[in-house]
Amino acid sequence: MIDHALSTAAAGRGIPSGDALLPADARTRAIARELYEAVATAPIISPHGHVDPRLLLDDRPFRDPAELLITRDHYVTRMLHSAGLELGALGLDPRRTVDPRDIWRRLAANWHRFAGTASGYWLSHELSSLFGVDEGLDEVSADRTYDRIAAALQKPEFRPRTLFDRFGIEVLATTDDPLDDLAPHRALAADPSFAGRVLPTFRPDAYVDPEAPAFAADVSRLLAATGEPTTFAGYLGALAARRGHFLAAGAVSADHGVVEPFTVDLDPAVAEDLFGRAMAGDLDSPGARLFRGHMLFQMARMSVDDGLVMTIHPGVRRNHHGPTFERYGPDTGHDIPVTTEYTENLRPLLEAFGTAPGFHLVLFAVDETVYSREIAPLAGFYPSVYVGAPWWFLDAPDAILRWRSAVTETAGFYRSSGFIDDTRAFLSIPARHDTARRLDASFLARLVVEGRVPLSTAHRISRDLVGTIPREVFKL
Amino acid sequence: MIDHALSTAAAGRGIPSGDALLPADARTRAIARELYEAVATAPIISPHGHVDPRLLLDDRPFRDPAELLITRDHYVTRMLHSAGLELGALGLDPRRTVDPRDIWRRLAANWHRFAGTASGYWLSHELSSLFGVDEGLDEVSADRTYDRIAAALQKPEFRPRTLFDRFGIEVLATTDDPLDDLAPHRALAADPSFAGRVLPTFRPDAYVDPEAPAFAADVSRLLAATGEPTTFAGYLGALAARRGHFLAAGAVSADHGVVEPFTVDLDPAVAEDLFGRAMAGDLDSPGARLFRGHMLFQMARMSVDDGLVMTIHPGVRRNHHGPTFERYGPDTGHDIPVTTEYTENLRPLLEAFGTAPGFHLVLFAVDETVYSREIAPLAGFYPSVYVGAPWWFLDAPDAILRWRSAVTETAGFYRSSGFIDDTRAFLSIPARHDTARRLDASFLARLVVEGRVPLSTAHRISRDLVGTIPREVFKL
Amino acid sequence: MIDHALSTAAAGRGIPSGDALLPADARTRAIARELYEAVATAPIISPHGHVDPRLLLDDRPFRDPAELLITRDHYVTRMLHSAGLELGALGLDPRRTVDPRDIWRRLAANWHRFAGTASGYWLSHELSSLFGVDEGLDEVSADRTYDRIAAALQKPEFRPRTLFDRFGIEVLATTDDPLDDLAPHRALAADPSFAGRVLPTFRPDAYVDPEAPAFAADVSRLLAATGEPTTFAGYLGALAARRGHFLAAGAVSADHGVVEPFTVDLDPAVAEDLFGRAMAGDLDSPGARLFRGHMLFQMARMSVDDGLVMTIHPGVRRNHHGPTFERYGPDTGHDIPVTTEYTENLRPLLEAFGTAPGFHLVLFAVDETVYSREIAPLAGFYPSVYVGAPWWFLDAPDAILRWRSAVTETAGFYRSSGFIDDTRAFLSIPARHDTARRLDASFLARLVVEGRVPLSTAHRISRDLVGTIPREVFKL
Repeated sequence: MIDHALSTAAAGRGIPSGDALLPADARTRAIARELYEAVATAPIISPHGHVDPRLLLDDRPFRDPAELLITRDHYVTRMLHSAGLELGALGLDPRRTVDPRDIWRRLAANWHRFAGTASGYWLSHELSSLFGVDEGLDEVSADRTYDRIAAALQKPEFRPRTLFDRFGIEVLATTDDPLDDLAPHRALAADPSFAGRVLPTFRPDAYVDPEAPAFAADVSRLLAATGEPTTFAGYLGALAARRGHFLAAGAVSADHGVVEPFTVDLDPAVAEDLFGRAMAGDLDSPGARLFRGHMLFQMARMSVDDGLVMTIHPGVRRNHHGPTFERYGPDTGHDIPVTTEYTENLRPLLEAFGTAPGFHLVLFAVDETVYSREIAPLAGFYPSVYVGAPWWFLDAPDAILRWRSAVTETAGFYRSSGFIDDTRAFLSIPARHDTARRLDASFLARLVVEGRVPLSTAHRISRDLVGTIPREVFKL
Repeated sequence: MIDHALSTAAAGRGIPSGDALLPADARTRAIARELYEAVATAPIISPHGHVDPRLLLDDRPFRDPAELLITRDHYVTRMLHSAGLELGALGLDPRRTVDPRDIWRRLAANWHRFAGTASGYWLSHELSSLFGVDEGLDEVSADRTYDRIAAALQKPEFRPRTLFDRFGIEVLATTDDPLDDLAPHRALAADPSFAGRVLPTFRPDAYVDPEAPAFAADVSRLLAATGEPTTFAGYLGALAARRGHFLAAGAVSADHGVVEPFTVDLDPAVAEDLFGRAMAGDLDSPGARLFRGHMLFQMARMSVDDGLVMTIHPGVRRNHHGPTFERYGPDTGHDIPVTTEYTENLRPLLEAFGTAPGFHLVLFAVDETVYSREIAPLAGFYPSVYVGAPWWFLDAPDAILRWRSAVTETAGFYRSSGFIDDTRAFLSIPARHDTARRLDASFLARLVVEGRVPLSTAHRISRDLVGTIPREVFKL
Repeated sequence: MIDHALSTAAAGRGIPSGDALLPADARTRAIARELYEAVATAPIISPHGHVDPRLLLDDRPFRDPAELLITRDHYVTRMLHSAGLELGALGLDPRRTVDPRDIWRRLAANWHRFAGTASGYWLSHELSSLFGVDEGLDEVSADRTYDRIAAALQKPEFRPRTLFDRFGIEVLATTDDPLDDLAPHRALAADPSFAGRVLPTFRPDAYVDPEAPAFAADVSRLLAATGEPTTFAGYLGALAARRGHFLAAGAVSADHGVVEPFTVDLDPAVAEDLFGRAMAGDLDSPGARLFRGHMLFQMARMSVDDGLVMTIHPGVRRNHHGPTFERYGPDTGHDIPVTTEYTENLRPLLEAFGTAPGFHLVLFAVDETVYSREIAPLAGFYPSVYVGAPWWFLDAPDAILRWRSAVTETAGFYRSSGFIDDTRAFLSIPARHDTARRLDASFLARLVVEGRVPLSTAHRISRDLVGTIPREVFKL
């Protein structure tokens, strides 16, 4: 019923072929296909993600199918954990050696659990388009598919840099600690044999939250590294200096992961006092909240000053299950969203900087309720505010369409950020961007069929969404 | 692909023609078209809006295309502001003269930003159906379209009263200050050459919120105008007297714009004390909240007494960007929604008046989450409660369908209010009502195709939604 | 346009025939029909509901059409109340005799108000498939349809046990007070002439909430019945003993109706103190909240110990309209949902028991916002957590599709609970389960057409959703 044949060109790029994700209605699908095909092979701009730059610097073959597609992807391991498997049996316990083939068999035995999920969609299309694995995984096919992928990984065309080229990646941003020396980024930029742009992103969370596990120690290292005194002014200067270091290495944005996007402009004396108590480990929870809120405000001020795009990823309660965190560490699948408020929380920041020339603030969300209620109205007024692309649990096909539907009628397409893959799973990058392109084409096709947008305008928007818009929003 | 030809009749009324907004599926579209066509030219009942009655009283030609379609419509100016344009350059600064043609050119240059927005849809259909402008706006077409519209505005058929007739408006409600003398309404009612009904609406917000900028001064004027003493009883009497003044001028409803629909029934001595402190400018924030909550309760009591339909429009943080408010005043595009709670907040009001005979309470929302969770369940029990039509950021095509989907399964069609345009933009009235009619037809057609509602019932509902229902809900 | 002809087999089972609820697009509909037909007559597993077991024990004919379809269904009476009818006129006042034919006439006169509602859909299909009433109700048809149904109710094939068999019910769970002797359940199990499984469900709400109207008296009866002392340990022992009593009578689950799913693990001395004050009627509101939170935690611990599946139905403000509650009692149509929070509230419970072997926790919701934000992410990590099927106001066609769309991309199909009818209306059971089957088929068909799930996988999922999954989740 559906054409699963892969065009060689698309397969080479890791792009699912055929009419996947396009709407059922024949007339709408035809328009969606036309719009999609015009941008299917456009370069990938990935201005926010979590790929390790050393992957590209070292350019070593991927070790095995399990490490490549399972162990490092907490989207996948959390689903297997929910099926009753221990994370240690999936390779997440560094003290325990697990045969990667066994891990692969566990994925195969639980493959039906991924049906309908975003991870299942991306994985099946990676398997198909990159490794020619078109059959479903199960106990019978597990070893056969494992061997096939393992063999492919030894070939030169599956080295990271070659995949980077095959995928058509033009820009790839990583996420980095403020004290990172960014040596891999500089080495890649200096390497004449590598043409891609790999940019660092300034992520200061651990240095601006007094309740972070090692706040005082981290800030002390920061001050030492920059030669700044242990004062609030010295602390701000140290952060500004490290931002400068990132800018020099090509960074275009600073990212902020906060539970709530609360902001407040404090009197300098109050800030100084809070900073002193935070460094002394003597700050209570309301004080810590005030400090975080003021630092988000200060980060906006620095973005106005130095031009780094400010992105906020709020609303996630990290490490929900203490015992799992203690045993396996962070990013192990139990970060759970909470209600998030933007209108009141961001007001102090926006009153001060919302109309500042050149300031860009991209708001992401894992709480869908804010799309039409808060983010789109904010982006429909403030020239600095952009509607961040669907994030984390929400960058899935249906969720992406819900997002476009919720924000477009208030803010249009040109106040949205362009797609962000935000992934650690390097192989999923083309599948994710392709998903977004297919769904934007589907959304636009419906507007065309409903007489709301002329086809020629839909073509312009579709092209801008993968080029002009992310370049402008992220100052690329 | 889509029939863009305009029928003369529809065009004359400012109604987009063809299959705009109807669903893609051919069978569903055919039923939707049948349902829509049966109500397309039904009279417009507009029981809540913000058109200035002097527009119709004076019946002067509109000044120019920019004033008509841009400057006075904060939906449009906020989008241009988000594109980086200053509001002063769009004609919002009374101290600065801007050539309206320049404003028009700015709209044209940014026309692509409106693609997919509700404002863009309405504007394009106003341009097409009223002015025959079927081309998209851009730098090239800007002057040509400006001249065409400017020329049309000089013709008698574009005078406000003529448009009122052409649009088929049967009832148009305005929104008015309690101390307004309502002279324009009375003059229009007395004018034998004008057959339309233009009704005032009682909107007491500034007089019931102790934190409003001029509360004490406004209430003093209110008491002086009605000869009431400065006591809580006098204050209630003064409000009741002004409601009577509005009723005498044809008003059918009282409207309440509150941040939260909090209600509370206070002991008279407590109310008296709060009132005294409010008038003295000596009421703290919790006290002000209690006072507002009690006044919303009192307004319901008065509606039970005098029969004015009570409408509540809650959940908007007004004037989010202080600097813009200070420079350009209110209603300049930065009113941003917040989470709103109805179940607990309205409980005291509904315990007291929820089953009172003849009491009508229409609940609007800019927070979509309350549709299925709070408003529809309330309207599905209380005979007084009606589900308000989608409001403000949510009266757009997709949002209207989401709303019907969220409320209908719990409350049916007959607990909804009928469409409300709530607009200051006179020319957009037919486009907005037409949008609602097309989407109700689309929603009903889907229920027919899914075997959930017989076609004959869908026809009855479709007709009732534009006639029986708004007439009953608003006591017209 | 739609085939309304009923197949004899389907009609006999109370199943609407034809393509009802299937999607409009022809290709998608064909796949949906194929998926649906493969499970249309699968046995009904109903692991949570409110049917009185004596209905089946006594097996008496239903009294009249009004008692059968209106009076006992607060979904129906609330809608008639919202139309302005007094509940007393609908048979809800035991002190007042109302002719059931009059009640039926009132339903008929207001039949248009049910168009598009879930209740209207179920009722119309019960009328059609069970009683051959295919015409719409109105003043003209009221008496004719009343007589037809009344006559049918005298026939043996409309006795409860015969309907139980005709409906194909395999398991039916009731909801019961912890002190219930469960005699009807035991008698049914011992009856050789009745082959169905009718299982009790442990529902301790009144015994774990110090703010429940008769908490101390109820707990005293509980302690007396189990011979436990008036200590916190005795109280826990008494609850455990009654759970054992339920387990012995075949219970598989314990259900918890709380306003908020707040949980906390208290120090035993604190719990003992709170218990003492609760029994003395001397516990303030914050203390009562702590006690409830600790008891939800303790109930989870007991489920880990004894294996009863834990289900939570939170987020409803019961008896919103005091005057109606005082006159007509609970469950009279004014229970209204409120915002509900799961991520933080359930964290203590899940930290302690979230990965406990054999623990099953099914989370229901009447607040749609938590589907994608909280419940699906929790179920996508914790092996104990299942996404409860749409509940109460949300078990309607559009709402069911919104739910699948919101949770599946994060948690897949295999972390969902299977359908729960949760009804007091015995006759609506097949219509409700059939609704869920049609919509799951529709949802899956769309994923097939969009190339996201192979058709063979969709068939497997569709079968599992009505068999394997509810059996596994509810340990049947």
